[in-house]
Amino acid sequence: MDTNKNKSEVLRDIGKNIRQYRKQKGWSQEDLAFECEFHRTYIGAVERGEKNITILNLLKIKEQLGVRLVDLYPEE
Amino acid sequence: MDTNKNKSEVLRDIGKNIRQYRKQKGWSQEDLAFECEFHRTYIGAVERGEKNITILNLLKIKEQLGVRLVDLYPEE
Repeated sequence: MDTNKNKSEVLRDIGKNIRQYRKQKGWSQEDLAFECEFHRTYIGAVERGEKNITILNLLKIKEQLGVRLVDLYPEE
Repeated sequence: MDTNKNKSEVLRDIGKNIRQYRKQKGWSQEDLAFECEFHRTYIGAVERGEKNITILNLLKIKEQLGVRLVDLYPEE
């Protein structure tokens, strides 16, 4: 990750972006969890940046939100 | 992930892209593993698409290879 950003910042940023796009869709965490077939608490943890999410789970979330990976992880 | 691509295809594609950029740099798997502070066998498994790699590990690899995330996961 950007060397000047540490790991938890990266995860927090990704989580914030997921939350923002989820809210734009008018979805609750339960809605997103249902669409992704994840547990609601997992979505909450991801949004808080507490999960070093796997690429497949991140791609599933981006797919359900209808965004691109670069929207969730904007590269400087 | 792209719904028409299944999970293992996605991981295989990412692994192939990592291998391609590693070779472009003239690096062995050992070299990339050393730079990322990973075990060599982990890099091998990732390149073969056997690992559902975490976002932080993927970002570390892309950083050491000097590429962007979209280079490792080109979005259709």
